[in-house]
Amino acid sequence: VAIVKPQMAFYEQYGFEGVRVFQETVRYAKMKDLLIIEDAKRNDIESTALAYAMGHLGEVELLNSMRSIYGVDMLTVTPYLGSDGIKPFIKVCEEYNKGIFILTKTSNPSAGELQDLKAGDDKIPLYLHIAKYISKEASRLIGKKGYSPIGAVIGATYPKEARLLRKIMKTSFFLVPGYGKQGATAQDIEPYFNEDGYGALVSSSRAVTFAYLDSESNKYPQLDYLESVREAAIRMRDDILSVMRKSGKIPKGW
Amino acid sequence: VAIVKPQMAFYEQYGFEGVRVFQETVRYAKMKDLLIIEDAKRNDIESTALAYAMGHLGEVELLNSMRSIYGVDMLTVTPYLGSDGIKPFIKVCEEYNKGIFILTKTSNPSAGELQDLKAGDDKIPLYLHIAKYISKEASRLIGKKGYSPIGAVIGATYPKEARLLRKIMKTSFFLVPGYGKQGATAQDIEPYFNEDGYGALVSSSRAVTFAYLDSESNKYPQLDYLESVREAAIRMRDDILSVMRKSGKIPKGW
Repeated sequence: VAIVKPQMAFYEQYGFEGVRVFQETVRYAKMKDLLIIEDAKRNDIESTALAYAMGHLGEVELLNSMRSIYGVDMLTVTPYLGSDGIKPFIKVCEEYNKGIFILTKTSNPSAGELQDLKAGDDKIPLYLHIAKYISKEASRLIGKKGYSPIGAVIGATYPKEARLLRKIMKTSFFLVPGYGKQGATAQDIEPYFNEDGYGALVSSSRAVTFAYLDSESNKYPQLDYLESVREAAIRMRDDILSVMRKSGKIPKGW
Repeated sequence: VAIVKPQMAFYEQYGFEGVRVFQETVRYAKMKDLLIIEDAKRNDIESTALAYAMGHLGEVELLNSMRSIYGVDMLTVTPYLGSDGIKPFIKVCEEYNKGIFILTKTSNPSAGELQDLKAGDDKIPLYLHIAKYISKEASRLIGKKGYSPIGAVIGATYPKEARLLRKIMKTSFFLVPGYGKQGATAQDIEPYFNEDGYGALVSSSRAVTFAYLDSESNKYPQLDYLESVREAAIRMRDDILSVMRKSGKIPKGW
């Protein structure tokens, strides 16, 4: 495990005490040298979007000095408000060396109700409009390894669409939820990666966190919990690597 | 002033201490018998959306009892994820007698980039798809006065579109930002109301909160701040009532 993706809603629902635990979770993950994607799906415009971006990714002024508050590395962001709602987040990514993932084609059952509507003069699905916007913004900010901090959320259950989206957003990381419990397999995941074997962050939540419920080990959940998580994470990594080997998309040095 | 609309981003950016102040702000507003719209533009799916909804509007289980955490009356919600992302919020509105406003046609400059795209088989703007969805969901939940807890955010700068949206979403309250500093006048606001004189919550933020910067009173900002807010709020109310009188849309008993 290289990255953790805590879901803000499950902390925030408990009010400020919950947010305090979120901040402690982030601190602990950093101690363990993990990168942190905060799944908060924030969105607003201009100065308000900037407040979200500075609070979560950047720094805010407090008692006459600039302070990192949440200090996460990456944040998920919702695009319904258009570019006014995205630019403040991009600005903070640039300034503080952070990343965002813009919801593009999500893995939930009703995702298509809006995202798949054919839209605009060229009658392409709405999610392709978002993908083109991301591609344009991402190409302005390319790091040493050829990737941009402006990524996209693309659900794991759309391998066909992913192949096209990969071509449009070559320099973006895809955050890929829906692996495991939501039904996507390692085979489905292959098109989400670039030819260099990078470009996809495959996220498995329930299949890892709740692995102990599926196994024999639920007889001793407290004792075996960590082991069940470890096994599920290793199984997922090996499944994906095996498909990547077959497809020839092997990251350098692996 | 009957309702306040605190903007969560400006609290949340300071971490858990900021969220604590938000919760105190809500408590204070309740003491003053004000209704509270939390402008947080939350969104997610299924159990995660439910966590946001229960935390902000409903109750969560804590130490073996159900507790109201934020306890606001209404919450703004973003629709990019489709109905999976909205239904959990509606469920909580029903159960706890609360309300939501779904972003439909927002007042920011780039709002049209997505929201105005002609979409679907009927090639209507995306925001009309949202409006039709709201209309359908709102009509299932009508209160004694003929209004639903499922409302829409419609920016104040679209009087022409508002007339049509009012016809589609007859039973929804419109939350109307953009009055004052963003350029909309009382005259622009009239189509947002129903014939009965109800249906629009016109929100003015900067023109009220920062009124002291525009007036003579900025010589004594600390002394005159409350007065500047009071004057700006009264001016706004009177401007809107005067236009409503001319149009014949006078709420009963006013």
